[in-house]
Amino acid sequence: MDERLARQIAFILQLDQLKGVLRRTRVLHEPRRENSAEHSWQLAVMALLLAEHADEPVDTERVVRMVLLHDVVEIDAGDTFVYAEGERERQKAREQEAADRLFGLLPDDQGDLFHGLWVEFEAGETAEARFARALDRAMPVLLNYHGRGHAWRQHGVRAAQVRAVNSVIGRGSARLWAYLQELLDDAVARGWLAE
Amino acid sequence: MDERLARQIAFILQLDQLKGVLRRTRVLHEPRRENSAEHSWQLAVMALLLAEHADEPVDTERVVRMVLLHDVVEIDAGDTFVYAEGERERQKAREQEAADRLFGLLPDDQGDLFHGLWVEFEAGETAEARFARALDRAMPVLLNYHGRGHAWRQHGVRAAQVRAVNSVIGRGSARLWAYLQELLDDAVARGWLAE
Repeated sequence: MDERLARQIAFILQLDQLKGVLRRTRVLHEPRRENSAEHSWQLAVMALLLAEHADEPVDTERVVRMVLLHDVVEIDAGDTFVYAEGERERQKAREQEAADRLFGLLPDDQGDLFHGLWVEFEAGETAEARFARALDRAMPVLLNYHGRGHAWRQHGVRAAQVRAVNSVIGRGSARLWAYLQELLDDAVARGWLAE
Repeated sequence: MDERLARQIAFILQLDQLKGVLRRTRVLHEPRRENSAEHSWQLAVMALLLAEHADEPVDTERVVRMVLLHDVVEIDAGDTFVYAEGERERQKAREQEAADRLFGLLPDDQGDLFHGLWVEFEAGETAEARFARALDRAMPVLLNYHGRGHAWRQHGVRAAQVRAVNSVIGRGSARLWAYLQELLDDAVARGWLAE
């Protein structure tokens, strides 16, 4: 029995549950919410393309690994809406437990590596983590804008909140944040986002 | 106007359509088919974990990029069931057109890079492509086995076909293929896969 491979595959099978964790954002071409697995994929391709716009040079592959893994904890802890302030602290504790359990399924060396990438992403202090977090915030802005503000309208989110919460995009890429701010202004002008 | 960023974002928004391309395989924890976006994410994490089992040393990051991009052409060309032999040639032509259109949305340098990775994956001749293709075949075997042979039973697929089609896994990783063959034997013994 190949114990190492068996542990790796047990983890890969657990990943399947992230396909059932729904975010507030909707996909563009179907009337359904996006799940965290497909979101993570889109961020990874986005990282490959947009790494050149990071304010500081980043190790693209490290950014890709971070975005691939950043939501795995939601398998146990669920997704938290970025505009739900009060919930954030309890969620943090749940996510730490989730990280211990889930990455603990892996062989120790790989579990430590993945756990480290998740902690780095959460802390948001390295250039790679700042940029990965910028992508994670940018994608829902893009989907909301191109979905005519669907989730903003549904949840009564206002422009000032959107600008405040997403200003961290500017900590990873001023260029990307400038681009998105134009979209937000346009969304307000079109009535998709309440000022 | 930031022309380069606008082209990159146009491509990223097109990617959203892959979330609506359904495969024959079902996800494990819901009664629904898997889409190609979430499948690509699972393969990318799988690549990070299992690259050490490739028969030849592989550049893991290149494998990750390939699996992230390998199904993007399905946005225009749709998914083809791996056991539908007659369909494969027509599908190849459709996929080539799709690659031209989709990767053509990107700035030339990035479009060429992505197109090259897709061609390399399809050809399956480099160590990275052989291993990426092994993962792409291995994942549905795992999902089918752990879903009690759901798609095999639904589509009347037999063990000899499964062994023949998936023997290419052994061209990328003998170790992984040995592991999966045990699962196939067990699936036959349990009546989830007809001999």
